[in-house]
Amino acid sequence: MAEIEIGIGKSGRRGYALDDITVVPTRRTRDPEDIDLSWAIEGYRNELPYLASALDAVVSPGRAVEIAKLGGLGVLNLEGLWTRYEDPEPWFERIAAAPDETAAGVLRQAYAEPVKAELVTERIRQIASAGVVTCASLTPQRTAEFAKAVVDAELDLLVVQGVVVSAEHVSKSQEPLNLKRFIREYDIPVIVGGCTSYHAALHLMRTGAVGVLVGVGSGDASTTASVLGIGAPQATAIADAAAARSRHLEETGVYAQVIADGGMNKGGDLTKAIACGADSVVLGTALAASEGAPGRGYAWGMTAFHPTLPRGTRVQVEPAGTLEEILVGPARTSDGRANLFGALRAAMAMCGYQTIREFHKADVVTRER
Amino acid sequence: MAEIEIGIGKSGRRGYALDDITVVPTRRTRDPEDIDLSWAIEGYRNELPYLASALDAVVSPGRAVEIAKLGGLGVLNLEGLWTRYEDPEPWFERIAAAPDETAAGVLRQAYAEPVKAELVTERIRQIASAGVVTCASLTPQRTAEFAKAVVDAELDLLVVQGVVVSAEHVSKSQEPLNLKRFIREYDIPVIVGGCTSYHAALHLMRTGAVGVLVGVGSGDASTTASVLGIGAPQATAIADAAAARSRHLEETGVYAQVIADGGMNKGGDLTKAIACGADSVVLGTALAASEGAPGRGYAWGMTAFHPTLPRGTRVQVEPAGTLEEILVGPARTSDGRANLFGALRAAMAMCGYQTIREFHKADVVTRER
Amino acid sequence: MAEIEIGIGKSGRRGYALDDITVVPTRRTRDPEDIDLSWAIEGYRNELPYLASALDAVVSPGRAVEIAKLGGLGVLNLEGLWTRYEDPEPWFERIAAAPDETAAGVLRQAYAEPVKAELVTERIRQIASAGVVTCASLTPQRTAEFAKAVVDAELDLLVVQGVVVSAEHVSKSQEPLNLKRFIREYDIPVIVGGCTSYHAALHLMRTGAVGVLVGVGSGDASTTASVLGIGAPQATAIADAAAARSRHLEETGVYAQVIADGGMNKGGDLTKAIACGADSVVLGTALAASEGAPGRGYAWGMTAFHPTLPRGTRVQVEPAGTLEEILVGPARTSDGRANLFGALRAAMAMCGYQTIREFHKADVVTRER
Amino acid sequence: MAEIEIGIGKSGRRGYALDDITVVPTRRTRDPEDIDLSWAIEGYRNELPYLASALDAVVSPGRAVEIAKLGGLGVLNLEGLWTRYEDPEPWFERIAAAPDETAAGVLRQAYAEPVKAELVTERIRQIASAGVVTCASLTPQRTAEFAKAVVDAELDLLVVQGVVVSAEHVSKSQEPLNLKRFIREYDIPVIVGGCTSYHAALHLMRTGAVGVLVGVGSGDASTTASVLGIGAPQATAIADAAAARSRHLEETGVYAQVIADGGMNKGGDLTKAIACGADSVVLGTALAASEGAPGRGYAWGMTAFHPTLPRGTRVQVEPAGTLEEILVGPARTSDGRANLFGALRAAMAMCGYQTIREFHKADVVTRER
Repeated sequence: MAEIEIGIGKSGRRGYALDDITVVPTRRTRDPEDIDLSWAIEGYRNELPYLASALDAVVSPGRAVEIAKLGGLGVLNLEGLWTRYEDPEPWFERIAAAPDETAAGVLRQAYAEPVKAELVTERIRQIASAGVVTCASLTPQRTAEFAKAVVDAELDLLVVQGVVVSAEHVSKSQEPLNLKRFIREYDIPVIVGGCTSYHAALHLMRTGAVGVLVGVGSGDASTTASVLGIGAPQATAIADAAAARSRHLEETGVYAQVIADGGMNKGGDLTKAIACGADSVVLGTALAASEGAPGRGYAWGMTAFHPTLPRGTRVQVEPAGTLEEILVGPARTSDGRANLFGALRAAMAMCGYQTIREFHKADVVTRER
Repeated sequence: MAEIEIGIGKSGRRGYALDDITVVPTRRTRDPEDIDLSWAIEGYRNELPYLASALDAVVSPGRAVEIAKLGGLGVLNLEGLWTRYEDPEPWFERIAAAPDETAAGVLRQAYAEPVKAELVTERIRQIASAGVVTCASLTPQRTAEFAKAVVDAELDLLVVQGVVVSAEHVSKSQEPLNLKRFIREYDIPVIVGGCTSYHAALHLMRTGAVGVLVGVGSGDASTTASVLGIGAPQATAIADAAAARSRHLEETGVYAQVIADGGMNKGGDLTKAIACGADSVVLGTALAASEGAPGRGYAWGMTAFHPTLPRGTRVQVEPAGTLEEILVGPARTSDGRANLFGALRAAMAMCGYQTIREFHKADVVTRER
Repeated sequence: MAEIEIGIGKSGRRGYALDDITVVPTRRTRDPEDIDLSWAIEGYRNELPYLASALDAVVSPGRAVEIAKLGGLGVLNLEGLWTRYEDPEPWFERIAAAPDETAAGVLRQAYAEPVKAELVTERIRQIASAGVVTCASLTPQRTAEFAKAVVDAELDLLVVQGVVVSAEHVSKSQEPLNLKRFIREYDIPVIVGGCTSYHAALHLMRTGAVGVLVGVGSGDASTTASVLGIGAPQATAIADAAAARSRHLEETGVYAQVIADGGMNKGGDLTKAIACGADSVVLGTALAASEGAPGRGYAWGMTAFHPTLPRGTRVQVEPAGTLEEILVGPARTSDGRANLFGALRAAMAMCGYQTIREFHKADVVTRER
Repeated sequence: MAEIEIGIGKSGRRGYALDDITVVPTRRTRDPEDIDLSWAIEGYRNELPYLASALDAVVSPGRAVEIAKLGGLGVLNLEGLWTRYEDPEPWFERIAAAPDETAAGVLRQAYAEPVKAELVTERIRQIASAGVVTCASLTPQRTAEFAKAVVDAELDLLVVQGVVVSAEHVSKSQEPLNLKRFIREYDIPVIVGGCTSYHAALHLMRTGAVGVLVGVGSGDASTTASVLGIGAPQATAIADAAAARSRHLEETGVYAQVIADGGMNKGGDLTKAIACGADSVVLGTALAASEGAPGRGYAWGMTAFHPTLPRGTRVQVEPAGTLEEILVGPARTSDGRANLFGALRAAMAMCGYQTIREFHKADVVTRER
């Protein structure tokens, strides 16, 4: 732990953002075609190491199927519009059509409708019917409430997700979700997050989570970090979580996945996140930029319309190509927002590494700025 | 003390601004409703840990009462317009109506009228008549002059405030204020500042001050730092003062309050200041942005119209909501300037801390930039 | 090796860009006229320590001769337009005339024509016929294919160049270029690159390369670094390669040249690169800015029109004078883009060093930012 | 010496610019009126610690007298327009009237006229006739040539000044100025510069120079640093020179003056330079901004129209008040460009220091950025 002194009475740690580092090629190179980008979680093998973010603007039931066919895992937000409305498409239209001034109000209205347990079940089954792996998310606050609906639908992977999720939530007024007990009782693999530190990640892994999401409010549609003053630079947070993974593996023999969540927009972001120790990444705004994305050119997070402390807004996303072009190319532009995994493959080839796990050993350098 | 070498002949210290750090959540979270934000100074308990800055644009006698009712402490500037004029409202109107080119001149003219001792007493009594705690400020230069008027008015808390205030002011030409003697002789709790270092804070505490203001010219309406070249990055200054507080507590058993003063505009600023060791913060421009603020959409400091060395100017402040919305929400926008204490509460909850003093232990990380 | 901790599980290194440093004059100065800027590689002595970059926009056969006469070495791209077309001038016209929207398409079309072995031989002979040293480049992928044509033409110096080139390329599907064997078999001195680390440079030197190009995608017309996330700050990369040169010299008695490649646009860039240990620099965009440059006011790299992962584009280059003015002045403007070697000469004089190799010992300082 | 590793083969030093630091008040404050800003060099006592820069735009013979009367020392450029023309005023008019495109040409033309020894003598006597201390500058290249004219005029202080001046200039073609011999032979105190390192400063002091100018091309009208890539961050350069001063004092008993030269525009710049160890500062553009400045609203350096390597240009300077207002106020604006010494006085008072030499001990802090 690289301790620094903030002042006489306070120590801190130096952290690094992904923008602060680059990955350094060394003495060996490799053919891009020989690189294996595949990633497995709980026996589900994916061609590409990514989750499509549980944002309504990114993953609909239909889109989840397309994503799966392109080698990834789409996470459906079980507290989003698809579980609030039988047919949410008109709402998507209204959100996209709203001028900036009223967009927040339209969002608040759209999400005022309650989530319906039967739709939770139905949406999962809808995805499963296409024969692909199903993955969906709930907040810790509502996980208990919809657990049965999720289990009934035989969901393959559950994501329990909030701005910050810990293994030990303390509440005087209500019974909090006991993650450890929940995971033991329900026979469903759980990915949990976000977290940003070694201890947070380690304790989440010890609940039995098969993966942790690393990152707090670092997505493009979020202002959580500046509004709340919390978070950690992402390169450091990923490396810390990777260290927790090693410790957990030594203690239990279980390899928990480290999934970098937030601000992954260019090929270089993926390269750096994985070189720092991530097993996989979450793509949010990056995929909202694809043709046919549910958000129709916009993205928004669940904190954007928080009733008392909104953090973020509806953001417009510059188009970057089809879903396939964004993921595996060909890229039409050279700004790095398309062919994300072609770029990762090229970078790994230039550094001489063959698999994601090997690439965790890549050399990194910071620029002194 | 993290010493660095500026050059062969000169050592210095590395400092950190609040913008350089973030607060890191760790393994425990907590319900926001269980967080206790209250703050007590000299037995006066406040629901929220803040002082409204002694700026005419922020605190009038009437506003001081509103602030108190919203859980804070409004500091009335006893050398401001309210003690120079029986009815200063026309001056506030003129200041707000002046075009930029002439604003400095109008300010200079407005403050040319002498301060009147009887108005000092009257304004304090005016606030006290509403049954709230009274708090008001004087500069060290004029503290002796108006001490009697202040004592007569039975002020609850006195703030002795200048750009830099030290425990030992040396003067050849005039008898300087001896803070230690003053505090002993008058039976009134005194908060003193600004200061920016361990030794400065410690010596101020040793005069018997119940609290110290930490920060030099770091407010938004001030250019003191660039004009004079003095100051210290705020995260470091707060942590240093917190260390002085610990030393003072060990030596005397007295807990002196560390109050972060300057540039507190977003929820994240409060989170970071308190995580660095502040017991409370001063809100200036942040509250000048409230509906009905005395400044009518403008803010200015006392150095703005200094006769020979003006540092700052009248600045326009973007509206951010009602006083209540700015303090405890709901926020109408997502830029962090409203629901400041809702944001602090959320951040403390995400980090698992229950009280302000516990939050002093929060982990912080810098971003290497 | 200055190790830093990115996170608990990951170490890295701190790197410095050329922009982060300056060269510090010390107790001795020297007359600019007494400075010797000459540079020799494999017995070929050049008045000035530079290679003109193997970009079609910078080096044509004719331009190579002019460059040689101005004391440098022009590297002809043997996979560029001059070896694809008997007369490529119309293509240069079309590229320069294309609006921004269609430039990428025109480039792709221009380079779709196959490279012809007979033109490879012809172009080299064309330059040789002027009686100057010939230097030209191939990618590792096609070096074997055109080796015979190159040898037939009796090329003086071959540059084997790619984004990243290593001494050990691993491929399952095709026989990769074995640099070491290639260099032994063919009786032609080879410069290889790019590389960015000590080990990469050392292993390239051990293949028998007479020089290494240091830098990965750091040219102005490239977005490789951001798209792929790889690379290293250039001051650090050069110093590392210089350390490899020392080691190689100790081991073999052979002094391999370290050639800084990428982003050399101002006199100060040259000064810094050489003070960090470079023997010579590559000038790309800097020379595309010269009157009569083949690119007609534009520059582009070979990655700009990569079929699936374009990294860069056609960039417009602000004119900076004639080739001679850019190299040795007089400069018409004071922005540092002309009289590059006059500036280097002046800087060396101010620091009291007489030769390029002596200047490797110059003091450098970073600015803490 | 804080060594850092640029790369494996290269060490460097970490440096700090004045912008990187602030001066920290501590436990004592003092009355501004009690501060003594006076500065003596070779028995010449000045009320204020500054030299007006040897720029034609800043110091004319008449202006030198005004400057002296306002407590400073104006350095007349003996190779400027006043020694080239009997009446240079028409040239100043033409320079000020020229549009940007032709300004460089006009400057070149104006300075094409040779310097005349008799005007050198005359100008010095002209200043001396007002009964003030005379100070004027020559470049090392022409010091020998005009030495007699300067001695004849009984100049009080000579400044030998170039971009970089060292104690040991090596030349094959011409006899360089031997500073040590020159200083011994001529009975005139000499200030020498610029320099930026401990060794450079120490060796200049050992030649017998009574003061050294610290800074290389750091003035506002210069692009030397970026064109040549040389220089050092100013806070570090000043501190190093101050260390050389201490060493020299120990060795010889002589206190050589450290004079910060370049980029001193705001009160805070002066505060920081002196806190780092400067005895005095050079004011250039800051005074070109005064009413009635010779430059008529423009400033330019001697490198601006260098025949082959121009570094800088004619820059327009925003007016900041009368000479007196800029030096000692009152300031009309709050941007720090006026009342420079009032600001220094205030800063010293806030830090509790009484004299310039005491202020060398002030605490400084960097901001980690």
